Amino acid sequence: MSGSKKSPAVDEHADLWLSPDELSSWLSVVRLVTRLPWAIDTQLQRDAGLSMIEYQTMAMLSETPGQTLRMSLLAEQTSTSLSRLSHLVKRLESRDYVRREPDPADGRFTNAILLPDGLQALQAAAPAHVAYVRHLVVDNLTPERLRRMGQDAERILGRIDSPAR
Amino acid sequence: MSGSKKSPAVDEHADLWLSPDELSSWLSVVRLVTRLPWAIDTQLQRDAGLSMIEYQTMAMLSETPGQTLRMSLLAEQTSTSLSRLSHLVKRLESRDYVRREPDPADGRFTNAILLPDGLQALQAAAPAHVAYVRHLVVDNLTPERLRRMGQDAERILGRIDSPAR
Repeated sequence: MSGSKKSPAVDEHADLWLSPDELSSWLSVVRLVTRLPWAIDTQLQRDAGLSMIEYQTMAMLSETPGQTLRMSLLAEQTSTSLSRLSHLVKRLESRDYVRREPDPADGRFTNAILLPDGLQALQAAAPAHVAYVRHLVVDNLTPERLRRMGQDAERILGRIDSPAR
Repeated sequence: MSGSKKSPAVDEHADLWLSPDELSSWLSVVRLVTRLPWAIDTQLQRDAGLSMIEYQTMAMLSETPGQTLRMSLLAEQTSTSLSRLSHLVKRLESRDYVRREPDPADGRFTNAILLPDGLQALQAAAPAHVAYVRHLVVDNLTPERLRRMGQDAERILGRIDSPAR
């Protein structure tokens, strides 16, 4: 309203707003984090009746000695709250894929254990899941760009997990 | 078991499984797409009582002429199903942030319109939201790496949206 002077609201945050290039890249990242989990979930549900996080949970169990992990550690590693993980594991229990028991080493903790039916379901789901991950991401980027995307993801995760904020 | 011969299950998919480097990068991407929406949601809910997708919806409306968009287009642009978007817009309506009306040009369609209270809430939420996006992503990567991450996201989105699969 007064010549070249911008409104106070704009001035106050003049260095804050994203440039058009920054905004465009950020909105691509927003679409990726919205759509990629949806795409992976859709494929896994259709082919194996599993969500991405159910698959990740069972895959993690399958790779540990005794196919056993503490629920709290599993929650941390799958970036899930303990209460959401409990619901999820209850669903997997009802299908005999997983069972829970008190940690023999310390009864205050609960362990989740992958059962033979769960391992079988995981092995049956894996080929189509991995093929889809290759199609969408791994074979769609050069090895160098995939590596960078992983590194940049870790940089962002580092700030998310930092208690500084 | 039988010398160097691997199990049939392994042989069958020998070219399919991810290498350790590929798996490591992919799991970083999985953690990113799981944790980043959660982090942005947490900040927006705490500071403004909005989810990321509610913010995106209102931001998109704020940038269109008449601050109006067809619900179907809005669903497409926010990567949301129409039924999920309807729930979301209903919540925004109950706060007088948005209203819906039949499209005057074609009554089979419904438009969503940003209301003054919604614009005000968006403007109040924007500085802290943008600062957090800068902290986590935009100022955390070099301009070149941010640009590449956006490009790689678009490559992946291109395959997600391709009807070929």
